[in-house]
Amino acid sequence: MAFEPLAYADGETPLTGLLARPAGEPRAAVLVFPTIMNPTPAVEAKADELAREGYLALIADFYGKAPAAFAEARAFAAEIRPDPPTYRRRLRAALRALATLPEAGPLPLAAIGFCMGGQAALELARDGAPLFAVVSFHGLLDTGLPAEPGKISARILVCHGDADPMVPRGQVLAFWEEMDAAGADWHFHSYSGVKHGFTNPATVTGNPAVAYDASADRQSWAAMLELFDEVLE
Amino acid sequence: MAFEPLAYADGETPLTGLLARPAGEPRAAVLVFPTIMNPTPAVEAKADELAREGYLALIADFYGKAPAAFAEARAFAAEIRPDPPTYRRRLRAALRALATLPEAGPLPLAAIGFCMGGQAALELARDGAPLFAVVSFHGLLDTGLPAEPGKISARILVCHGDADPMVPRGQVLAFWEEMDAAGADWHFHSYSGVKHGFTNPATVTGNPAVAYDASADRQSWAAMLELFDEVLE
Repeated sequence: MAFEPLAYADGETPLTGLLARPAGEPRAAVLVFPTIMNPTPAVEAKADELAREGYLALIADFYGKAPAAFAEARAFAAEIRPDPPTYRRRLRAALRALATLPEAGPLPLAAIGFCMGGQAALELARDGAPLFAVVSFHGLLDTGLPAEPGKISARILVCHGDADPMVPRGQVLAFWEEMDAAGADWHFHSYSGVKHGFTNPATVTGNPAVAYDASADRQSWAAMLELFDEVLE
Repeated sequence: MAFEPLAYADGETPLTGLLARPAGEPRAAVLVFPTIMNPTPAVEAKADELAREGYLALIADFYGKAPAAFAEARAFAAEIRPDPPTYRRRLRAALRALATLPEAGPLPLAAIGFCMGGQAALELARDGAPLFAVVSFHGLLDTGLPAEPGKISARILVCHGDADPMVPRGQVLAFWEEMDAAGADWHFHSYSGVKHGFTNPATVTGNPAVAYDASADRQSWAAMLELFDEVLE
């Protein structure tokens, strides 16, 4: 699929989203947050799949620049992520870019994301964004600004590899407690032996923290589609 | 749907399963363990749905007699459940009744269950039964005989209400540890605010431990079908 570049901005920072349109009338508009590496073929394949399923999908741009390697991506992320208001402003800019498209006007909005992008989608939920659903795939679950009671309106689905060294069980339990304190409606799927990055068939080998898992990839994607169906029907 | 009674026995105890046949060639054979109340309309509806999805489904008989009320069901369960070998022999009898049907001969076998039946399905997995999948809906996760390493061959899916007072988070974590120690392949779905018995639209009101949850019912059933599809394709 050819993506259509969509220019938007966060203050002075120019950003470029990648838009995928479905063949017919979109069922809903879905914001897709990429990993810390910004858009990759794996995330583009997911946005493409969303479009095939009938959704208008926009891949967000975290940085306005492409990291050459992981170390650079970490440096870019460090410019926005540590400060929750800064981070959320960047994320809201992407949501606004999607929501203000002429064809998105009447559509329900959702956000999903992968790795750092899963965390980003959850941050938008914590921020009270008007989303019908937020889905995190191997996302980080911690936050610098826990959700306030009543703030989260989105249905939450977290698809998590239980063997993800970046998200140990203690972080999982803390997340449940944060979500309960906020009164959020969440579903949490945990997959045994599954590591970080389980949706990415091209996951870098040599990093023991990450591994593709075809079953978790399939089951988590089906769970997302079923949740969307439930809410949109 | 009219169920076909299937007579079988556990030693001297005569039992009667309820068989539901799909219209065409079955994709697989699924043993359905009912709740502590033995077959109820809610469980029959699930077996019926399995048959509509193309599965040969047998509802197991825990007791060989119908409990008149919950107190009697508890007394019946107390005759078989506390002793794992006794309990598992009763469960294996049901699996054998299904597996030895002429039309089940070449079919892959799975087991699912609800409440006590979820525990029963997990007990069969712990017992090393040759099942391709075991799915527990609001099942009890504890056991008198934890699984031995390498014993579990079935894919495990547990669909759990996070607000189920009969299965607190401590029992959830202990279950994960038991399954990991056994080397099992498990997926665990937890639904916030969801109580015991969430698949039963006729759940008794007045018991604060149980409540129907339409979303958890829908999502858990879809997850089971998707897992079956993945393994059987």
